[in-house]
Amino acid sequence: MASPLRRDDGSAAVTQDQRQISGEDSLIARYFKPLATDPGALGLVDDAAILRSLGEDIIVTTDAVVEGVHYLAGDPPETIARKALRVNLSDLAAKGAVPAGFVLTLALRSTEDAWLSPFADALGEDARTFGCPLLGGDTVSTPGPQMISITAFGRVPHGRMVGRTGARPGDRILVTGTIGDAALGLDVLTGGAVAAALASDPHAREMLVSRYRVPQPRNVLAQAVRNHATAAMDVSDGLAGDLTKLCAASGVSAAVDVASVPLSAAAASLVARNAVCVETLLAGGDDYEVLCTVPPAQCGALIAAGQAVGIGVTAIGTIVEGGERPRFLDGQGKELALKRLSYSHF
Amino acid sequence: MASPLRRDDGSAAVTQDQRQISGEDSLIARYFKPLATDPGALGLVDDAAILRSLGEDIIVTTDAVVEGVHYLAGDPPETIARKALRVNLSDLAAKGAVPAGFVLTLALRSTEDAWLSPFADALGEDARTFGCPLLGGDTVSTPGPQMISITAFGRVPHGRMVGRTGARPGDRILVTGTIGDAALGLDVLTGGAVAAALASDPHAREMLVSRYRVPQPRNVLAQAVRNHATAAMDVSDGLAGDLTKLCAASGVSAAVDVASVPLSAAAASLVARNAVCVETLLAGGDDYEVLCTVPPAQCGALIAAGQAVGIGVTAIGTIVEGGERPRFLDGQGKELALKRLSYSHF
Repeated sequence: MASPLRRDDGSAAVTQDQRQISGEDSLIARYFKPLATDPGALGLVDDAAILRSLGEDIIVTTDAVVEGVHYLAGDPPETIARKALRVNLSDLAAKGAVPAGFVLTLALRSTEDAWLSPFADALGEDARTFGCPLLGGDTVSTPGPQMISITAFGRVPHGRMVGRTGARPGDRILVTGTIGDAALGLDVLTGGAVAAALASDPHAREMLVSRYRVPQPRNVLAQAVRNHATAAMDVSDGLAGDLTKLCAASGVSAAVDVASVPLSAAAASLVARNAVCVETLLAGGDDYEVLCTVPPAQCGALIAAGQAVGIGVTAIGTIVEGGERPRFLDGQGKELALKRLSYSHF
Repeated sequence: MASPLRRDDGSAAVTQDQRQISGEDSLIARYFKPLATDPGALGLVDDAAILRSLGEDIIVTTDAVVEGVHYLAGDPPETIARKALRVNLSDLAAKGAVPAGFVLTLALRSTEDAWLSPFADALGEDARTFGCPLLGGDTVSTPGPQMISITAFGRVPHGRMVGRTGARPGDRILVTGTIGDAALGLDVLTGGAVAAALASDPHAREMLVSRYRVPQPRNVLAQAVRNHATAAMDVSDGLAGDLTKLCAASGVSAAVDVASVPLSAAAASLVARNAVCVETLLAGGDDYEVLCTVPPAQCGALIAAGQAVGIGVTAIGTIVEGGERPRFLDGQGKELALKRLSYSHF
């Protein structure tokens, strides 16, 4: 897209080869065309892409990551790329959708090959791994922090997207993987209390940092979620806050057994040593696990589906009637007083 | 989406009303939920939206605007909103697609009502005018310049999107509206030579500024473009550069009669007075007109379709064989030496 505002910086030499008329086009051709493997991407030579539908619903989700907000300025380009795509894939997983592709808006300060090349390679690797090809995008210059905005598409049979509004009293609350690791990983990266508590455990530090930098979206469970969940969302802002949103959307409340919330060995050890309180994990954010509600008779099937692919699926509580916010109960049935539920930008 | 990175700024008070759990959610509910009129938007309570298709192709386009790059920091929020959506609608128009909706990523430094309220109102007004409802989005905080990234969706009958690759020798080159006004408007806003040349003509200044700030996408002509054009794109980076891209994609060249390029009265007067050279208009960018190639027998029909809705459609040249870049010829058939073809970000 044009902007004469930076016309001096942006002037492009007119060469004899009309296929190289601007730096922007060269950049797209060099780094991103190899990722545009879907015929609907039209090889990135058009302003638009084509998403074919044969009557299924197209699920659309969009999430942006901003340097210094969602990732650290010094994070490796590979992990930034993976995080930008995976936070969107995580939404598709929770909606029960099969990835269909994505468009990318990349706001860059500079175009160093040393950054762009590993960024594009990692993005392409994830696009292949998750079956979610690049369909198009926009590359713009910015004087400010880098930002990567992705809109991802998925497919579900018509009417089968798993929403937030279907949770019913009696449903069990299930969550994939482990909760709170990413928040701990960020604390490690920023030299917080966790970094100190794990000074002698580089493996634990590395695992937690990896959970912050590279989410593990649960797309392999999308079909099982679609088959069994009455409501679902991904845990991105913090389990406590996200469950609160799900309950509000469904017009129900919930009781969570905090001792059941699945923790990694590293997180459990930190809690046991009082280096971290469990509330921090419940409100931490960046988990990118699936949170869903499932009728009791179907919990076993979803847990088994997880076992089949090596992903833990854990029941952590029950949906109950009422309009109050979910209660988080300790081993004695006493409610935890959560000072905050989740991250909010504003 | 979460980010514990700014956890102190982002902490949200836990109220008894679980429907107000975070500032981000309140912001979305207050300003953007009224725009989410499509059932597929799910009232913005979900992370995802549903785009229904009954066998048509879904056309996807994405364009971002960055403060200080695509618009001026002091531009009114109303015009920023309209520009952000319209640059995407313009792509849909050129592809022959009927708007179906859009998702919005808003990177904000602050959340002042005095900015957000007119921004959302104008965005909603345009969404209604163009039949392109808000389907979803992401609101993130940024320490840097504001950025608005929009991904817009359109529908065309299967296989009927107008691409860039179909131009054939003998096709006439047609363009809607007038070319170069937006570049002149930017020059007025930044106090350049145009501002001085138009010191005594406030109406012309205002018209040109409006063309820069608020594009007029030609969506009412989308069906006519689909019915008659062999190739099309919107003119966003500059007519010369965009035609060069279209020709490269189609494997053809072109001869443009520069005297035929439609100019507004203000632009024509500036050229006649030698206050601006025509090359500046040809490479200016931000026009958001439709550039298309049409077999000679069908030019009349497209021009008539324009007349019926009050939009000029002008033949400016002919597609010819060859791989060299398009030639821009003056009244004597002499080729203009264009120093630059268009804006490029890098």
